[in-house]
Amino acid sequence: MRTSASLDTRKFRNALGTFTTGVTIVTTRAPDGAPVGLTVNSFNSVSLEPPMVLWSLAKNSRCLPAFDASAYWAVHILSVDQEPLSNRFSKAGEDKFAGVHAQTGVGDVPLLPGCTARMQCKTAFKYEGGDHIIFVGEVLDFDQSDIAPPLAFQAGKYMVAARKTDSVSLSRLPAPEPEMGFTENFINYLLGRAYFQFFAPMREHLQRLGLSENEYYILAVLMIKEGRTISEMNALFSYSGHEATQELIERLCEQGFLRATGESRPAGCYLTDKARNTMLNILAAAKAREAEVFEKFGPSETVTLKNLLKRFILQTDPGLPDPWAG
Amino acid sequence: MRTSASLDTRKFRNALGTFTTGVTIVTTRAPDGAPVGLTVNSFNSVSLEPPMVLWSLAKNSRCLPAFDASAYWAVHILSVDQEPLSNRFSKAGEDKFAGVHAQTGVGDVPLLPGCTARMQCKTAFKYEGGDHIIFVGEVLDFDQSDIAPPLAFQAGKYMVAARKTDSVSLSRLPAPEPEMGFTENFINYLLGRAYFQFFAPMREHLQRLGLSENEYYILAVLMIKEGRTISEMNALFSYSGHEATQELIERLCEQGFLRATGESRPAGCYLTDKARNTMLNILAAAKAREAEVFEKFGPSETVTLKNLLKRFILQTDPGLPDPWAG
Repeated sequence: MRTSASLDTRKFRNALGTFTTGVTIVTTRAPDGAPVGLTVNSFNSVSLEPPMVLWSLAKNSRCLPAFDASAYWAVHILSVDQEPLSNRFSKAGEDKFAGVHAQTGVGDVPLLPGCTARMQCKTAFKYEGGDHIIFVGEVLDFDQSDIAPPLAFQAGKYMVAARKTDSVSLSRLPAPEPEMGFTENFINYLLGRAYFQFFAPMREHLQRLGLSENEYYILAVLMIKEGRTISEMNALFSYSGHEATQELIERLCEQGFLRATGESRPAGCYLTDKARNTMLNILAAAKAREAEVFEKFGPSETVTLKNLLKRFILQTDPGLPDPWAG
Repeated sequence: MRTSASLDTRKFRNALGTFTTGVTIVTTRAPDGAPVGLTVNSFNSVSLEPPMVLWSLAKNSRCLPAFDASAYWAVHILSVDQEPLSNRFSKAGEDKFAGVHAQTGVGDVPLLPGCTARMQCKTAFKYEGGDHIIFVGEVLDFDQSDIAPPLAFQAGKYMVAARKTDSVSLSRLPAPEPEMGFTENFINYLLGRAYFQFFAPMREHLQRLGLSENEYYILAVLMIKEGRTISEMNALFSYSGHEATQELIERLCEQGFLRATGESRPAGCYLTDKARNTMLNILAAAKAREAEVFEKFGPSETVTLKNLLKRFILQTDPGLPDPWAG
């Protein structure tokens, strides 16, 4: 057995880092009236009756004199949108409060906006804790907001927490997974099923309008930017197995969805008002469906799914052109 | 301003719940030799030199006498796989250690397996904290494992944290989002692009073998279970726009991928060894690619993406039959 003196600090920090935390900023007012604050993840709850919370401050922190002098401080539990604020308050030197529209709380303590929760506290105890002082505060007032999901921190990185759902199983008969076979955990199956299920009502909508999937892809890339040529369109979506052909373009012109090119415009395909209105209707229905599905997901999960899909796309990108590039 | 006596306890808990935490089990040994433990999320780090951690124990906890009597205890930071253990140790009454293969640590303290990190501690301070006692321990020894991602907790629910990547942008020219238009945040675009990009090399593989996408879908559902009829197959995948037809089945028979039905088997389609080997080759290549992509994702993100896709699928399921049902 090792004694604590022999602990490897880096390894100890790594082990501690497997404990997930939120991120807070703790603020107070210095005797000279200056607002003081720092980023803290050693926050936690202590007591419900009376309501008490705690956090630890390094004995060598520049902020210690202010927290020693003031009986009042506020803990701000940060939202995912406040990562820049967390970074700013974790470094010494700059004017941390510049441009922040701070309100004023109990004891003249600065209160930051945009947090998931804020606790206004009065120091109840200050305790010895090795190279830190443990501040235990009685909570005098608090507020909460659903402005955005909370920011989390794990293994030295900012995180977003999503509800744990290991137990989600699509099949009602979860069999032991074969070493090589088609299972519900195969990413190709999950992506395909999610995509096609979401797209199915859009496909039906298109069918009622007499439009094929290939034609939908053509109109969709023209909605982003007009004037594309057939080969430009295929460079964008042929990876998906869809194809723009001269024949399809002509059919879309005949149906009144595309305009003939050339007339004082550069060569390429242009949408008619009919096409634009049709696509906006399809899109509005799809966006309403998306909102309905994500309503049941919650904001953290929605942000997380979209971000993970973007990372997946970047990892598997064969080098496609940017559809949104000017 | 409210005084703390007037705080609404439920609202206060909700506000505190926006601070994300990990989940730990803290164990000790009672004077009578019985192992003692409970689930705790009020854990946090305090000091690096000397290494110290803290947690809070309710004054009315049945476990308090044991922690008062023993100078030694261990904190176990739980992994996502240990949710059942967390639930078991958060309730009084049952034999929490039944069936757990606990080792023995410093001070005869029971050590649980399968955690992301364990800290073996000796009480340094016991502090007053309202309705709780704050235990501060010096860390005598610790270990860490990458066995699984850490379990997290937020707003009363188990969570898995995924790296925050709000800044992921597919387009190099992130323009302000139009109120209604095709953007990179449209879930249909993200799912379709992720799916088709992943599937593209599989499609090329199929093309080299002379197989169409419709034929791939037929062979894939037969890999899961043979003997399906054309209408059974279509019930499984027609939502995706793919279709099994008599003509395609005949073509697959001619190419040696399917066997004629009827011969002492119930009606339906059966794979040849050639078909099975072909599909296993395609699948092996796809699984190798999947492993490569997820290698760069990390385990939390992989679990999270798959679970969120499953939840998305359940939310958008038009009532498809279970492909894996016996």
